[in-house]
Amino acid sequence: MNQNYIIPNEWSVVEEGFDKERVKSSESLFSIGNGAMGQRANFEEDYSGASFQGSYIAGVYYPDKTRVGWWKNGYPEYFAKVLNAPNWIGIHIRIDGEVFDLASCKDVRNFRRELNMKEGWLARTFEAVLPNGEEIRVATKRFLSIDLDELGVINYSIEPLSKAMTIAYEPYIDAGITNEDSNWDDKFWDVTAAVIEGERGFVRSHTMKTNFEVCTFMESEFFMDGAPLKLSGASKTTDRKVAISYTADVAKNAVFTTVKYGGYTVDRNHPASELKSAAIAVLERAKEAGFDSLLELQQRAWASIWDMADIHIDGDVKAQQGIRFNIFQLNQTYLGTDAQLNIGPKGFTGEKYGGSTYWDTEAYCLPFYMATKEHKVARNLLAYRYQQLDRAIENAEKLGFTNGAALYPMVTMNGEECHNEWEITFEEIHRNAAIAFAIYNYERYTGDESYIPEMGLEVLIGIARFWKQRATFSTAKKKYVILGVTGPNEYENNVNNNWYTNYAAKWCLEYAAKCVEKVAKEDADAYARISSKVRLASEELSEWKTVASAMFFPYSEEHDVYLQQDGFLDKELITVADLPTTERPINQKWSWDRILRSPYIKQADTLQGFYFFEDDFTQEELERHFDFYEPFTVHESSLSPCVHSIQAAKLGRMEQAYTFYLRTSRLDLDDYNREVEEGLHITSMAGTWMSIIEGFGGMRVKENQLNFTPQIPAQWEGYSFKVNFRGQVLKVSVQKKGTEFELEGDKELTIVVNDKKIIVPPNNLITV
Amino acid sequence: MNQNYIIPNEWSVVEEGFDKERVKSSESLFSIGNGAMGQRANFEEDYSGASFQGSYIAGVYYPDKTRVGWWKNGYPEYFAKVLNAPNWIGIHIRIDGEVFDLASCKDVRNFRRELNMKEGWLARTFEAVLPNGEEIRVATKRFLSIDLDELGVINYSIEPLSKAMTIAYEPYIDAGITNEDSNWDDKFWDVTAAVIEGERGFVRSHTMKTNFEVCTFMESEFFMDGAPLKLSGASKTTDRKVAISYTADVAKNAVFTTVKYGGYTVDRNHPASELKSAAIAVLERAKEAGFDSLLELQQRAWASIWDMADIHIDGDVKAQQGIRFNIFQLNQTYLGTDAQLNIGPKGFTGEKYGGSTYWDTEAYCLPFYMATKEHKVARNLLAYRYQQLDRAIENAEKLGFTNGAALYPMVTMNGEECHNEWEITFEEIHRNAAIAFAIYNYERYTGDESYIPEMGLEVLIGIARFWKQRATFSTAKKKYVILGVTGPNEYENNVNNNWYTNYAAKWCLEYAAKCVEKVAKEDADAYARISSKVRLASEELSEWKTVASAMFFPYSEEHDVYLQQDGFLDKELITVADLPTTERPINQKWSWDRILRSPYIKQADTLQGFYFFEDDFTQEELERHFDFYEPFTVHESSLSPCVHSIQAAKLGRMEQAYTFYLRTSRLDLDDYNREVEEGLHITSMAGTWMSIIEGFGGMRVKENQLNFTPQIPAQWEGYSFKVNFRGQVLKVSVQKKGTEFELEGDKELTIVVNDKKIIVPPNNLITV
Repeated sequence: MNQNYIIPNEWSVVEEGFDKERVKSSESLFSIGNGAMGQRANFEEDYSGASFQGSYIAGVYYPDKTRVGWWKNGYPEYFAKVLNAPNWIGIHIRIDGEVFDLASCKDVRNFRRELNMKEGWLARTFEAVLPNGEEIRVATKRFLSIDLDELGVINYSIEPLSKAMTIAYEPYIDAGITNEDSNWDDKFWDVTAAVIEGERGFVRSHTMKTNFEVCTFMESEFFMDGAPLKLSGASKTTDRKVAISYTADVAKNAVFTTVKYGGYTVDRNHPASELKSAAIAVLERAKEAGFDSLLELQQRAWASIWDMADIHIDGDVKAQQGIRFNIFQLNQTYLGTDAQLNIGPKGFTGEKYGGSTYWDTEAYCLPFYMATKEHKVARNLLAYRYQQLDRAIENAEKLGFTNGAALYPMVTMNGEECHNEWEITFEEIHRNAAIAFAIYNYERYTGDESYIPEMGLEVLIGIARFWKQRATFSTAKKKYVILGVTGPNEYENNVNNNWYTNYAAKWCLEYAAKCVEKVAKEDADAYARISSKVRLASEELSEWKTVASAMFFPYSEEHDVYLQQDGFLDKELITVADLPTTERPINQKWSWDRILRSPYIKQADTLQGFYFFEDDFTQEELERHFDFYEPFTVHESSLSPCVHSIQAAKLGRMEQAYTFYLRTSRLDLDDYNREVEEGLHITSMAGTWMSIIEGFGGMRVKENQLNFTPQIPAQWEGYSFKVNFRGQVLKVSVQKKGTEFELEGDKELTIVVNDKKIIVPPNNLITV
Repeated sequence: MNQNYIIPNEWSVVEEGFDKERVKSSESLFSIGNGAMGQRANFEEDYSGASFQGSYIAGVYYPDKTRVGWWKNGYPEYFAKVLNAPNWIGIHIRIDGEVFDLASCKDVRNFRRELNMKEGWLARTFEAVLPNGEEIRVATKRFLSIDLDELGVINYSIEPLSKAMTIAYEPYIDAGITNEDSNWDDKFWDVTAAVIEGERGFVRSHTMKTNFEVCTFMESEFFMDGAPLKLSGASKTTDRKVAISYTADVAKNAVFTTVKYGGYTVDRNHPASELKSAAIAVLERAKEAGFDSLLELQQRAWASIWDMADIHIDGDVKAQQGIRFNIFQLNQTYLGTDAQLNIGPKGFTGEKYGGSTYWDTEAYCLPFYMATKEHKVARNLLAYRYQQLDRAIENAEKLGFTNGAALYPMVTMNGEECHNEWEITFEEIHRNAAIAFAIYNYERYTGDESYIPEMGLEVLIGIARFWKQRATFSTAKKKYVILGVTGPNEYENNVNNNWYTNYAAKWCLEYAAKCVEKVAKEDADAYARISSKVRLASEELSEWKTVASAMFFPYSEEHDVYLQQDGFLDKELITVADLPTTERPINQKWSWDRILRSPYIKQADTLQGFYFFEDDFTQEELERHFDFYEPFTVHESSLSPCVHSIQAAKLGRMEQAYTFYLRTSRLDLDDYNREVEEGLHITSMAGTWMSIIEGFGGMRVKENQLNFTPQIPAQWEGYSFKVNFRGQVLKVSVQKKGTEFELEGDKELTIVVNDKKIIVPPNNLITV
């Protein structure tokens, strides 16, 4: 834990006191989003202190050129970046002619920032002593509307405390923004129009190269002590900016308020020619509703999200705040309504990882969305990959594979690979298995058997073809081997026979064959359509099975464990406990070659296989592997603690499970990795959710039934959550005295608790 | 072979006929240099066709920022680039007011370009039909003086053929040049003065960041039909350029000539404040001598180089041209007079590989310079590394090594690592062994036992300390292993127990221990000085020996060969002969991961060890390893064919040895790799020399005696060469009827020919 300034609170993230050193961290932590757009918690008014400006639009990216030392064949030509979009939140403020800027105030008192997760808004209140010694009180509230997802609303009030003042609000849109991480100082946005019409401002711009068209818009209203105030504005327009200045004389202790409506209309949702009229329509709806009604709508939208997604924890406020922060941020990032969108590892809270899609979605995020939303949301996440199958096939072709083999990219915005480290893009091929596993996981959880014949089977065939070709026969071992890979543990590169990859490949080959056989048997039309489309040859299935059945798995007789890869035991096997803390984190302290040679594991690798394929192994095997690998694991990936928490819980080691849980749930709030100012770790937040549901709650789906093995960390009184299982909502409340199940709807549900079948009738509390 | 336009000629590289498509290739092939500077064979006059401008000054480089996908600890911060220096060869020419430019002439007849290797000059002659239909004849000759190594001289003549013409010569210096491969479009040169004083022009500039100060200078003379002509010039000066225009009316069939003197004075050789006066001194000496005398000096200088370095081949003009081209380019690149300089893989012929120092120098170039120059030249090459020992220690510290362990950089200009691929800089650590081996090789060849106590021992200790720490103990194997390396075969990355690296490490540890013991025994003062300076601990030697004696070597019982690395036999072992030619070269056709997974070898790896340490292995072992590895070798490195040629000759396979020889000797002349326009492969040229001397001639030094096992390729009548062995020059002439030895000097020399001792008396031809 590297910081401790967030005030524990069950429903809000709260900061008290103004500290310039914390501004960038807080800009990340207090980020807001609505799935379609999001922004860091930058101040509306000018701020001359250290700040990281960011406002992002879902799906709007830029292919920044990659240039590396020496080019290697197959390198992607660009690295997709999420783009900092035109700033619509800005309000220049002048008080008695002087720019208002917190960095230059003589004093800032009673500063309080709150991200209200229950209702979905961000607020600040404080008193400031201006450079001239005069005092004001400020209150702001801002949210991005869930209902009108192109709209954001700001309520900004100033109350002169020491004397009457002349206050000018100058709301603006600024398209003269840049990315912090621009590779070549390229210009990302081309501004084609910056106009003011009446009280409204519009900036029309498009991204360079990708040509996403965006209309950024704004309109403002004014109030004095709550009463509407008609002010006439003075327009200021430049090439990349529009601003309108409104001035009022404000009596001492009067409250002068502006409500600013703003946001983006984008050509993903509207014809490019209608972006401005769409923006006008949004503004008209917003003004008609007004701030209070919009806020009420927002509260209702979040209430509905929480009703399904909340996890309540008794007796541990910090754990409660942590899990709600995770659930809140996941929902701010992705709501599942658009199959063209996906979940970037930093969501809308920073630029790192380019806002792109990683295997995180399939491996970590899918269970959360399956259980807390309607199933179509998870199906949209799968369909995203189906829509990109052609590009996965192209990607595999670039690397020399044939016959419709598909290699999904490690990092993508549109289906193309867009990462530029060869050891990641070329070697970290295990991601292909996660995409197949998600299809299996989806059908297992939802029981929706329509996805595979409609879309999934083609994906599974492409993936199986890839593994069939990628595994090669070793005459020395008389087995199929997979050489030159990077497993989930990115602290190894170019290893042979990474056990996780080999096991996942074998699983994919067998599962694809099984699915093809099932569709052939049960849905002749679908089979005919698909097999003709992908030109499935009669011998392919048996080839897949041959490779799967003769796959090589490195194994140590001495330790009775599968080896992470060939040669793992040649390393100096010093456990993390024996590594001086001054050497950690090794990714900051050690050179890359030293990390590679070491036994240290960044995140679950062999254990990731024991997580995905747990039914293939006994509890004793899990224990042996956990005890062998966890001591070498440095957990320097945000995705590491959650899997280990789940497995520790499964092994009944609740104290260890809880430690991992705390690390994952408050990773950002407590800034464990000293980097929260760069943005939040969104995808690992779904892992936090899994730590409770699958870890402490022990929830699994086996043979179409929900299973639970509930446990409670010693630090808690109890906890409760809901899951949507095949259209029925089950509330689970784990208490020390027992576990209560409560079912919404009108038909009973059979579940398995601690290996015992229980029938839960609807609307009746069952205690086990 | 991809081109065939160079006319076979024993002493010259000749091109006939003007072809715009060949201009960039010829600019490389006809490059000239004098060890201190060099330049591509760009035309003096304007040329608007495709051209790659390049003029380079030894030791003048620029640290271009590296930026890679994701930074890894230990990455070098820059990639050193050789810099294109201000152009002093340029002469704008106007004929009757029109710019003369070969690209826009109506016709170019009897075009002939000659690089006269015997005398060290470059010439062009041709007749041109100008755009206006008029005809001229042009003759140029240019050289960079060996004696005055800051000076270059151009003789440029035009003869109007169809009518009298007004001809303006406008010699200039242009500092407005750029590099083709600039990473960030950085400006590399800052010009501080561009002045004309009388008939002389000077441009003062310094490199950005590295701040090398350079004065580029010029002065011209004029002649009409050979008689001096006094012309008054018109000066034209801009910020980055000086030019002086001289005009004459030239009668039909009169020859109007300009002689331009130019070059660079640099602050490596003069105080920065005296660069201009040094330039004036050079110009005065040049003018006083005049073109003809300077050319005569040049011829004499080259005669003296050839007297020692020439290899004469009977009965094979293309082979003769090839080897002389190699020897000529090596001497143009490095003459060994300055221990601050070294041998860049492309010499002064292009920008690629940054003009930096690689292990090529120690592994490939040293034998050539030892045998064809005075021994101090080779000693200078060793001293270069001694001077950089502190930085090698710093480099190792950056990677986590301690106690004065030294890791020499893979690529350097000043001792710092300046390459930016982690798999090269962090992993290709075998270069450290080549630097130790060169010390051994130098003492073995020269018998100079003073280098080790004076300088070499500190280097050897630093290197031994590195290997001692870099090898780690595998409890599984009960041996020391070296994990995570790249061997000489760069088509593998991050492998474990690369046999070559492990063997070379073992050798270094043992050799360093032996040298320490020898110095301790024989030179107490040196031992006391060194052991105190490097804080040599009493247990270190035994630690080195422990690691060396328990080093692990991967071995295949089945094939009875050492394995290139752990797991090599798991690859799909398809030989190059069975690889479709459409797939080659694999570095152009295959993605990087596919190359890594394949068994294909870029250049000698295991066999490199059999080359360096040949006495440790039997002929049968060599044969077995050659037969196992060569079939997987694609020879896509210019450094590959020479080692294989030497080993094929040792195995008595002269036909194969000859094929490899041709490939190495005419690599650039015939453009085997389709890239000669980027520059020449200078360091591999020393390998060509070794192919004849060590391969065909079988020359070795054993127990302080020269050994020979002479063979002749079937295609040759015979060949002869000289070697300087410990101050005595031995001429060896291998003929079908026997081998002749002739010794200069005044004392006899015992040599071993085909395992028989022969005493060669001075100045007496001995035939064996």
